[in-house]
Amino acid sequence: MKLPGVGRRSAERMVFWILNNPKDQAQAMAEGIVRLKEGLGFCKNCNNLSETETCSICRNPGRAGEMICVVENPKDLLAIERTGTYKGRYHVLLGALSPAEGRGPEDLKIHHLVNRIKAENVREVVIATDADTEGEMTALHIINELKPTGVRISRIGLGIPVGSSVEYADLSTLTLSLASRRQVTE
Amino acid sequence: MKLPGVGRRSAERMVFWILNNPKDQAQAMAEGIVRLKEGLGFCKNCNNLSETETCSICRNPGRAGEMICVVENPKDLLAIERTGTYKGRYHVLLGALSPAEGRGPEDLKIHHLVNRIKAENVREVVIATDADTEGEMTALHIINELKPTGVRISRIGLGIPVGSSVEYADLSTLTLSLASRRQVTE
Repeated sequence: MKLPGVGRRSAERMVFWILNNPKDQAQAMAEGIVRLKEGLGFCKNCNNLSETETCSICRNPGRAGEMICVVENPKDLLAIERTGTYKGRYHVLLGALSPAEGRGPEDLKIHHLVNRIKAENVREVVIATDADTEGEMTALHIINELKPTGVRISRIGLGIPVGSSVEYADLSTLTLSLASRRQVTE
Repeated sequence: MKLPGVGRRSAERMVFWILNNPKDQAQAMAEGIVRLKEGLGFCKNCNNLSETETCSICRNPGRAGEMICVVENPKDLLAIERTGTYKGRYHVLLGALSPAEGRGPEDLKIHHLVNRIKAENVREVVIATDADTEGEMTALHIINELKPTGVRISRIGLGIPVGSSVEYADLSTLTLSLASRRQVTE
């Protein structure tokens, strides 16, 4: 019941499943949990989840430098990977600025991102933090911290989602959508 | 039952409401329907719904020229008006390109928009068609038609809606969001 999403009834079902199955299955599951905790860590370069010191994306020479996409969590990274359209590297913040939860700029370790820009000869940083208050605040903070490096900074598109109509967009999305319009001619 | 969203049961309820109320109410409602049909038309300048030859937005000198926002329908215009942040004028297409419904470029009367750019000394056209296939196709068509005029053209922000997280964005929205990222530094 300590696991997220597991209530009393689910927990009971799991207990009976374990009781009803051979001992080696319970053993394998227990070992899996320990291995997960011991074997999985964060990539020392980008903070992505990794079983090795640096993750498979950072080790892939085909995705070298040029572009770094900044996300809040490894789950965001996985979502972007699923699009199959992004070929650069990542920088995982492991959180967003949150005065409510006491997470300030020093917790995001932006200086490490700044170092990577020089070390990996990065030309563009795409900020893909969430479109909520904390994500926007974090994006602004990163923009300010990165400006002195002279690197090109961009923010992912925010506004009307694919398939949606202007008529049904909520007020704040429509307001943002107008404010964040992109010029299509020079 | 011919009205949208009115089924047999609703229609019955309406009939009994009319029968149970004084005759002058039925009379007033009947006159309202005729007046709506006779009195309401399209603004001859921007196609917005209007009781007069030109709509109140086109007649408002405070919203003169400079910027025109292109929308598919009067309902989209109302949605943008509700944000309270847009101070320019509109151009209502009264539809979008739709091969399926047999609506081609000639039905959108873009030449009238082109004429307005010169006549009203417009500096920027913001294309606010929907984020669906027809809306995107329409946006591309308008961009091509307007390019020769040299006017600045922009597209409203498309991507992650306000309050949403990258992790939960659907694949196509996330793909578009990455592709339509905005540069925040020069």
